[in-house]
Amino acid sequence: MNMTFQKRGETPARTFDEKLDLLAEVAVKVGLGLAHDQELVMTAPIEALPLVRRITRQAYKAGASIVTTLFTDEESTLLRFRHAPQSAFDVSTGWLFEGMARAFEKGAARLAIVGENPALLAGEDPDKVARANRARSGAYLPALKYIAGFEINWTIASFATAAWAKSVFPDDPAEIAVARLWHAIFAASRIDTIDPIADWKAHNENLHARASYLNDRSYSALHFRGPGTDLIVGLADDHFWAGGATRAKNGIVCNPNIPSEEVFTTPHRERTSGTVTSTKPLSYQGTLIEQISVRFEGGRIVEARAKTGGEVLNKVLDTDDGARRLGEVALVPHSSPIASGGLLFLNTLFDENAASHIALGQAYAKCIRGGGAMSEEQLAAKGANKSLIHIDWMIGSNAIDVDGIRKDGGAEPLMRKGEWAYG
Amino acid sequence: MNMTFQKRGETPARTFDEKLDLLAEVAVKVGLGLAHDQELVMTAPIEALPLVRRITRQAYKAGASIVTTLFTDEESTLLRFRHAPQSAFDVSTGWLFEGMARAFEKGAARLAIVGENPALLAGEDPDKVARANRARSGAYLPALKYIAGFEINWTIASFATAAWAKSVFPDDPAEIAVARLWHAIFAASRIDTIDPIADWKAHNENLHARASYLNDRSYSALHFRGPGTDLIVGLADDHFWAGGATRAKNGIVCNPNIPSEEVFTTPHRERTSGTVTSTKPLSYQGTLIEQISVRFEGGRIVEARAKTGGEVLNKVLDTDDGARRLGEVALVPHSSPIASGGLLFLNTLFDENAASHIALGQAYAKCIRGGGAMSEEQLAAKGANKSLIHIDWMIGSNAIDVDGIRKDGGAEPLMRKGEWAYG
Repeated sequence: MNMTFQKRGETPARTFDEKLDLLAEVAVKVGLGLAHDQELVMTAPIEALPLVRRITRQAYKAGASIVTTLFTDEESTLLRFRHAPQSAFDVSTGWLFEGMARAFEKGAARLAIVGENPALLAGEDPDKVARANRARSGAYLPALKYIAGFEINWTIASFATAAWAKSVFPDDPAEIAVARLWHAIFAASRIDTIDPIADWKAHNENLHARASYLNDRSYSALHFRGPGTDLIVGLADDHFWAGGATRAKNGIVCNPNIPSEEVFTTPHRERTSGTVTSTKPLSYQGTLIEQISVRFEGGRIVEARAKTGGEVLNKVLDTDDGARRLGEVALVPHSSPIASGGLLFLNTLFDENAASHIALGQAYAKCIRGGGAMSEEQLAAKGANKSLIHIDWMIGSNAIDVDGIRKDGGAEPLMRKGEWAYG
Repeated sequence: MNMTFQKRGETPARTFDEKLDLLAEVAVKVGLGLAHDQELVMTAPIEALPLVRRITRQAYKAGASIVTTLFTDEESTLLRFRHAPQSAFDVSTGWLFEGMARAFEKGAARLAIVGENPALLAGEDPDKVARANRARSGAYLPALKYIAGFEINWTIASFATAAWAKSVFPDDPAEIAVARLWHAIFAASRIDTIDPIADWKAHNENLHARASYLNDRSYSALHFRGPGTDLIVGLADDHFWAGGATRAKNGIVCNPNIPSEEVFTTPHRERTSGTVTSTKPLSYQGTLIEQISVRFEGGRIVEARAKTGGEVLNKVLDTDDGARRLGEVALVPHSSPIASGGLLFLNTLFDENAASHIALGQAYAKCIRGGGAMSEEQLAAKGANKSLIHIDWMIGSNAIDVDGIRKDGGAEPLMRKGEWAYG
């Protein structure tokens, strides 16, 4: 008889293909919780085809009725910026996003594979980039509603494209950069564990316990303090902390981000004040925005600058009124597996899970108690923000303390030097 | 001073990339006649990415506002047949086709790149294949209306995928099969000429002259005679012969097929009688249907058999009532460049241009005089057929004679031994 003994937490020896298979299985079973006879709409960079096919196989095995992948090609995107007429950049594909919304309305699940080149549009005309983004955000709104409102089960996973890997590891040859990025993705996504599905279950229980504590305390605000940061984030009335697996309104439990380390809730759109400095660069649609520093008054950013990418930042803030207000605040310990790797992924899916963060723009209805059944007016009355954008940026580090502010004004420690410190 | 003299018709020496560039240019300028500020919706097999990018570049240079490519992946299609539950096969992506219809409604042009593996579904359960096809055809109808009705400019071009090439040249190694198929595609698509754009212009003039003659004669029927064939195809009232470049209802002149050698019109749905035998195999969604032989009575197929693929053929005929009636008849001389190559492409886009053919199913409104402005009822009153399907199959060869039957019953020779013989 032959048996292999493995210590808990030791990484099993697996081939790349086996790891990719496991990532696909985690995406479908943990990420989506895909139901029998459910339709799946996937978006993916065209380079992600090997993962797309594995996810497609897992989805059909889980009982999917039909899987449709909408592939994007960054080369084609660049061709538009290089050759399309000036008049083109206010146009977007509303018909496609309305179609996606219709699929969600009829019960489809949604899986996004990300793997963008963070520097794709760095050399293009910022005015064209801003116009194209605004047009796209507006056109996407019908589909985004189903996602932001958790009407359906959805998830985001990732694929190490060559362009992304070369941005993260510029000094390595492409093959090595890709291998290193995959290594980091598999570790962060908990694929390098003995039983990834079981590991995600335990991880979800931890995140639920954190959220549960914060919900019990029901703070009126959070206070972030550290170098360049002294920020009060007022929380929305009846705000609700969430994290890890969540039940969508269609009744299906999903993990919206693979990986995920955060617990998060909805700030009140009018109750943030003070100054805050970003602790990691923000990679926003092709531009790296570094050392963001902003000042809030009455919930609104009244002053914003950045060491690089300031022009893009200010264009983003001008998208609409809600773009200058917070739609999310999230707490992530500095010892999270993603932060402890020390790598800047140049992709929000990962970098936001390495540090506490705030997001400009649209709030999640599900982070208001009973918010899923509320009208936009009712959500706004609770303090939830509304915007075409939702952009996370990192404000946590091992130099940041966070207090919870009670309704009576008293302060309780939540994090010290970036680590959980309550209880 | 350096000059190169070339005889007319001599093939210029071009690299493969130069030919692919020219194919993209012909697809956009001749095929679509793409307008400034027009949106373009493209469909393509994922392997066709090199051509997709070239077409995208040409489209933006021609002033396209935004180009969206919906890629299909045959591996993913197979995964569905292998792993999806039985209940899946009556489902299709109506939301996507409704979205496409909405894009066309708003003025988008349409380009399809074909390159299917003709044998893809040959080993799959015919019942699943038939159900999936029926579901897809029904779901596609909202988009098909804009195409069949020539509401918009559209075209079909092709890409030599490895699977397609291996079906056409099964005895060659993949690289050689692909090279041979490309050679045939470039020749058939008139890319191997000194000036492909000018060559298409001259070719369109020839096709227009043929159609014009047939429109002047205004026959009531065509009579096909040859081995296994004695068929009267009654033509629709106020039928109109078309061929080559055509003006869509949006005012744009397009060439709907690259290549195209046919002149075609609409038969009367109740006036075809007699027997007809196919002269080339029909490759229908993964199945090769060979030596089709059918008998018509009062426009309807009352008896159908085939040497291979008969089961699939009979399932197709059961799609709806219109699937047993003709929606198109087309004349192609046996000396067309595609027929003279002698190659069976296993793809209708090419094979239908190698021989006179008929199509089961949906008629083109534009092949009725004034049909573009008619209601479905008005078109039906003229004899135009309606169906979820439109399937061309080849009935011409160098052994087939065709007569035009005048309204007074007299016959006039149109083709003898597969060649034009009028005037």
